[in-house]
Amino acid sequence: MYRTNTCGELRIASVGQNVTLAGWVQRIRKMGGMTFVDLRDRYGITQIVFNEETDADLCGRANKLGREFVIQVQGTVAERSSKNSNIPTGDVELIAKDLVVLHTSDVPPFTIKDNSDGGDDIRMQYRYLDLRRNTVRENLELRHKIALEVRNFLNEHQFLEVETPVLIKSTPEGARDFVVPSRMNPGEFYALPQSPQLFKQLLMVAGFDRYFQIAKCFRDEDLRADRQPEFTQIDCEMSFVEQEDVIEMFEGMIKHIFKMVKGVEFYDPFPRMTWHECMRLYGSDKPDMRFGMTFVELKDLTEGRNFSIFDSVNFVVGICVSGCASYTRKQLDGLTDFVKRSQIGAKGLVYVKYEQDGSFKSSVDKFYSQDDLKLWAERFGAKPGDLMLILCGDDANKTRKQMCELRLEMGERLGLRDRNIFAPLWVVDFPLFEWSEEDQRFYAMHHPFTSPKLEDVQYLDSDPGRVRANAYDLAMNGVELGGGSIRIHDSELQNKMFELLGFTPEQTEDQFGFLMDAFRYGAPPHGGLAFGLDRVTSMLAGLDSIRDCIAFPKNNSGRDVMNDSPSKIADAQLDELCLKIDLDKINNK
Amino acid sequence: MYRTNTCGELRIASVGQNVTLAGWVQRIRKMGGMTFVDLRDRYGITQIVFNEETDADLCGRANKLGREFVIQVQGTVAERSSKNSNIPTGDVELIAKDLVVLHTSDVPPFTIKDNSDGGDDIRMQYRYLDLRRNTVRENLELRHKIALEVRNFLNEHQFLEVETPVLIKSTPEGARDFVVPSRMNPGEFYALPQSPQLFKQLLMVAGFDRYFQIAKCFRDEDLRADRQPEFTQIDCEMSFVEQEDVIEMFEGMIKHIFKMVKGVEFYDPFPRMTWHECMRLYGSDKPDMRFGMTFVELKDLTEGRNFSIFDSVNFVVGICVSGCASYTRKQLDGLTDFVKRSQIGAKGLVYVKYEQDGSFKSSVDKFYSQDDLKLWAERFGAKPGDLMLILCGDDANKTRKQMCELRLEMGERLGLRDRNIFAPLWVVDFPLFEWSEEDQRFYAMHHPFTSPKLEDVQYLDSDPGRVRANAYDLAMNGVELGGGSIRIHDSELQNKMFELLGFTPEQTEDQFGFLMDAFRYGAPPHGGLAFGLDRVTSMLAGLDSIRDCIAFPKNNSGRDVMNDSPSKIADAQLDELCLKIDLDKINNK
Repeated sequence: MYRTNTCGELRIASVGQNVTLAGWVQRIRKMGGMTFVDLRDRYGITQIVFNEETDADLCGRANKLGREFVIQVQGTVAERSSKNSNIPTGDVELIAKDLVVLHTSDVPPFTIKDNSDGGDDIRMQYRYLDLRRNTVRENLELRHKIALEVRNFLNEHQFLEVETPVLIKSTPEGARDFVVPSRMNPGEFYALPQSPQLFKQLLMVAGFDRYFQIAKCFRDEDLRADRQPEFTQIDCEMSFVEQEDVIEMFEGMIKHIFKMVKGVEFYDPFPRMTWHECMRLYGSDKPDMRFGMTFVELKDLTEGRNFSIFDSVNFVVGICVSGCASYTRKQLDGLTDFVKRSQIGAKGLVYVKYEQDGSFKSSVDKFYSQDDLKLWAERFGAKPGDLMLILCGDDANKTRKQMCELRLEMGERLGLRDRNIFAPLWVVDFPLFEWSEEDQRFYAMHHPFTSPKLEDVQYLDSDPGRVRANAYDLAMNGVELGGGSIRIHDSELQNKMFELLGFTPEQTEDQFGFLMDAFRYGAPPHGGLAFGLDRVTSMLAGLDSIRDCIAFPKNNSGRDVMNDSPSKIADAQLDELCLKIDLDKINNK
Repeated sequence: MYRTNTCGELRIASVGQNVTLAGWVQRIRKMGGMTFVDLRDRYGITQIVFNEETDADLCGRANKLGREFVIQVQGTVAERSSKNSNIPTGDVELIAKDLVVLHTSDVPPFTIKDNSDGGDDIRMQYRYLDLRRNTVRENLELRHKIALEVRNFLNEHQFLEVETPVLIKSTPEGARDFVVPSRMNPGEFYALPQSPQLFKQLLMVAGFDRYFQIAKCFRDEDLRADRQPEFTQIDCEMSFVEQEDVIEMFEGMIKHIFKMVKGVEFYDPFPRMTWHECMRLYGSDKPDMRFGMTFVELKDLTEGRNFSIFDSVNFVVGICVSGCASYTRKQLDGLTDFVKRSQIGAKGLVYVKYEQDGSFKSSVDKFYSQDDLKLWAERFGAKPGDLMLILCGDDANKTRKQMCELRLEMGERLGLRDRNIFAPLWVVDFPLFEWSEEDQRFYAMHHPFTSPKLEDVQYLDSDPGRVRANAYDLAMNGVELGGGSIRIHDSELQNKMFELLGFTPEQTEDQFGFLMDAFRYGAPPHGGLAFGLDRVTSMLAGLDSIRDCIAFPKNNSGRDVMNDSPSKIADAQLDELCLKIDLDKINNK
């Protein structure tokens, strides 16, 4: 037995007890004849006291300890004369009687403190030290709690967690698969799942009724801050349900998690908005609802005043920023620079200040009279002191996306994006298809198994872009936490979908034949959704990136810098797999 | 809303209610003017009644239903005149008022009944239909419950579930890795984890103190009935522990699972036995403790009687089978054939019958007197009526393994291997190394991170075979449910181990350098274990193979016959990965 108690356990009631603690040396201070060691483990910090007077040898050994040494200390709990009210163990200290060094430590490359991380590269290289910091560990504790609450909630609602395979069949639709060569089937490959989609649908055909799985998923995509090659989904599916049933169930789950893990209660139903309305008002399918500044369209009010920039485009849109009429020239130039950044790509920014005296001052005063601008202000619902910011363009949705960025930036500047406020929104009625200008074809906006709305099936051939799906996303604070759909459970309609998406009957049979076969034996109506566990966790932890709620994340090149993987493998391994590496292919890319 | 109730929910108290059910047609019977449909879902079966007299049209439509059609029925709950006490809903029936066919069904390739599965091949091809059978679904429900109880138990004991990566670094020690080519790092590969071993040790270095994960693991090995290329481990690790702490914690977990999931309580501590003792008494490191028949060694009693077969070998071992002296010649010949099978490989079998009259009858009567055999019987502790079965050989452990098979066979024949009895055993003091005759070198018996016993460290160089490890397995009913060890947490000793296992310093640095680095910053003493979730589930479900507690298992060639994977992938995919397939390599193997 290495310890009788943890470093977070001792209290005033423990005074007089003989205990043994073990942990890491956080800090050593010498004061007069006393040496104080802060001993740390996952559960807390306890102060250890070595007294030179009572045991000079022991104290001498304590003085030789270094930061991050692993030690075991036996002693008596005593009340502290100067208490530390910042930590739960702050009323007591341990008067050491014996000390064992279990492991020494080199000087760590950064100190193990909440606010000292040595920068991203070194943190990732020494991730095992980074994980010792409370801030990082707490994110993973939160993740653990969320997963546990999800499981208990779903179990109580008759969901069964079923593990689906990780070595599956490769299907080219969607993102790029990671593949795994099969030694026993030379020349053939498994794929790693992008999601358990087909298997969960098969489980519905199998009558499992309510399925979930907290499942690792894999996408071989070029990475961004909030993307990892492997990520974790809370994947769910239900039979004999309509959209309303699914939304109700999982709104309940999200409310449960927030209450149990964060103490946040949502008393009202989550608001809902159609995809088209989201795009019109926020320029995003995952709007940040913590603040207003909804879009106002102005094209009709801007015409006929010889302002060629507005006259020459189809679309003029603005937001009203409350109380910012006092913005300086420099601040406004800053905003113009912001929207002109290549990531956003606007040509310029028009502003109108609604001055406190009721007059207007704008960057387009040459073209628009005070009466013109008053009409604009009325449409914005602006008050004296407000600032109106206006963008224009030919492509309405492109311009909306630019305005969305500007809106988020203004929300950020005004402190309206408080991490302790959570604003959920169900986005519904997504389009079934998305047109790709590049490929000149329609793609499934969610995936090919999404059911169209019954009343829109008539447009599948004549006007596919008009068809709405029984698909829904849950957005929160500008982040898509999850989404899903009612699925097609009819082979005929499913075949029609594959056809519209450009699959030949042979491709359909080869890739999805087993699902089509399964449907032939009685498929129930079914639907579901998936939440990103990484995203849900980073939302609750108040993080910007998902990386810090993942124990061992990869960098933007898909590398684990700690163990330097991926790496070369032995020729013998390649031979067994009947594979050759041909790096010339890079040059031909 | 497709249904108001499930098919397992209605009771006598529901009589008179208007309800809507949905599910699969299990069975249709016509009796006079009535049509009875058994409607099935995951929760049960409810009898639906269509009455020709009250609604001929509706009844006509019901008569056209087929097995496995998915239907929705609205009606009134009524008390049944002839009740069925075999099912919980057997007191009531639903008098149908409306019927909607949600999906038709082809005639399934086998009927969806507990005892009708159409054989293994067709079950796997139509796994989604096989999963509709109660017997199969119940295994997966059990698996769900076990996983949930494991998580709740470990959470209550301060374990954190941490997800470790699935795309990791390939390390050649141990079984063969599955590898994943990296597109972003051409010519390099990830491996899929054989276990999260290194990551869980890093989490201990990171101070996580108590970790667990129900994790998918992967081994590219040739498959057997109880092996799958992907399998699931309950993987656990603790800091500041000795072997006793680990055993106590996880004995508690296993007891908890059995109690909560199966209602089985173990009141006593699990028995323990050293590995050497297990081998001596049972010829196995996972003995079936549901019955006795422990081995008895006889060599000294058999000498000097000119029986050359015994005289020419080093080792003679037997078991005493209670009450089987009456075995016929044919039965004894059957046992001889059994031990001579190539999988077992014994040369022959000697028997001694202890007759009811106190005399002995044996296959070696020519060489041994009644007095000789009486001495044998005394050593066996045999009584009149017992049968002694004896094998011999030069290699004691090889002979013991043969005897182990015979012992299990006799246990089976005598009905001593009752699936409702659970006999756990901690096997402790495993050897640290295992000698490979084939490779003429030592291998780590568990893995290279296992700690030797302190008192045996002195033999590491001089007599490695003698060194015992702080390693332990939990066996039950002849199955290894799990195992683990106290780990080395000292870089020097760890380096010594790598050296003894034949790693060059360069190999050690390349493959395990990051772990050695981690140890330099203060590693706590730690240890843990892993249970096979598939094996624990099949033990509790009373299954012979792990396959039926896996939703979508692979066959012995690693194939999923349902979706015919693994499969060929597109040339474009190979090009992106800088890979070429070279099937000629098969021929060179």
